[in-house]
Amino acid sequence: MKKAVILLSGGLDSSTVLAMAQAQGFACYALSFNYGQRHTAELQAASRIASAAGVVSHKTIGLQLDSIGGSALTDDEIAVPETDVNQNGTDIPVTYVPARNTVFLSLALGWAEVLGAQDIFIGVNAVDYSGYPDCRPTFIEAFTQLAQVATKAGVEGQAFQIHIPLIEMSKADIIQAGTDLGVDYGLTISCYQADDQGRACGRCDACQLRRAGFSAAKLSDPTLYQ
Amino acid sequence: MKKAVILLSGGLDSSTVLAMAQAQGFACYALSFNYGQRHTAELQAASRIASAAGVVSHKTIGLQLDSIGGSALTDDEIAVPETDVNQNGTDIPVTYVPARNTVFLSLALGWAEVLGAQDIFIGVNAVDYSGYPDCRPTFIEAFTQLAQVATKAGVEGQAFQIHIPLIEMSKADIIQAGTDLGVDYGLTISCYQADDQGRACGRCDACQLRRAGFSAAKLSDPTLYQ
Repeated sequence: MKKAVILLSGGLDSSTVLAMAQAQGFACYALSFNYGQRHTAELQAASRIASAAGVVSHKTIGLQLDSIGGSALTDDEIAVPETDVNQNGTDIPVTYVPARNTVFLSLALGWAEVLGAQDIFIGVNAVDYSGYPDCRPTFIEAFTQLAQVATKAGVEGQAFQIHIPLIEMSKADIIQAGTDLGVDYGLTISCYQADDQGRACGRCDACQLRRAGFSAAKLSDPTLYQ
Repeated sequence: MKKAVILLSGGLDSSTVLAMAQAQGFACYALSFNYGQRHTAELQAASRIASAAGVVSHKTIGLQLDSIGGSALTDDEIAVPETDVNQNGTDIPVTYVPARNTVFLSLALGWAEVLGAQDIFIGVNAVDYSGYPDCRPTFIEAFTQLAQVATKAGVEGQAFQIHIPLIEMSKADIIQAGTDLGVDYGLTISCYQADDQGRACGRCDACQLRRAGFSAAKLSDPTLYQ
């Protein structure tokens, strides 16, 4: 079996990506980050999901991204928006973490190289997160180019592939696809400000998108709300 | 004054780069990483150097790169080579840390974006470290392309520049240039396996390159050896 590194946040999207990678026959190595996000409930969710999926290995790397600041997701002084999605007066949401996906993919690339894997999966989505520059296909293409020249494996001729299976899917499509693959979304957490019990706020951007997705897919929403 | 982020390891090269950036008139923000390297003496050196140079800010980000493994510099099970440089039977040394410069530059990019800086300095050197894929101009060019599409600032038209002033310099040239700029190399540590007092082993690749550099520059070597 070919090995793949899967970026697993503990949310709905990345859990679906993991199921897709397994369905494609990859031996999956899940990678999560403890990067100073406001709550650790999503890391607990990532562990539950990795365990339920039976991944080969699940690694959580500590990374003090909060020391850089600049995002509502890591900086306590910037409020998480509860207004309508992307209606906060700028094109790029305050929940954007500077260079986050670049950092996450770099670490996934490092682990892939150690494992001898050439496939990396990431759950970026252009429809919902068009305001995040590092969720666009253009970014993924540039990172793929970088991977070829950045690594010993790439220089030796191994071709890296960054898989973005969700890129053109709606939230409803993602939920339907994951449900078909047996993903238990009750294990996942999407909320930007979940409480210690992992219950979602129901008000932040991520909660609104998730709730609307289940509604549009005409599937019951297993999310625990506060 | 324009702001710049300087990757500062505490070694000879990055300390010289910092002095060069200051000489070019940049307000310097130094960035170091506690990434599971075998000793923390170089982090203490980075702090001394940043302080002596009078940087605007010095940040050290914790990053569990050792959990990925694969390098003699972060994995206790892989020995640091004490043979002649690059004579260990492969083209790429075992001291290569998978995707390290990609990860470091990604975090520098994130901080630069938060600071509103568009200049990043890194002390990569093609002459001495030709075996490291992520020390080559090709890699730097690919990262610059990535930075433009990965960030809010880049999408909004800000042009990032990754400065690599040492890229074609010999170790002796670097030492001469830094000496001319007033760098105190007695504060720096290059050794891969320095002891708790920051004393160098004198045998590893980095020690050999450094010692030969002072010799070729005809300057006295201030390094403390064990």
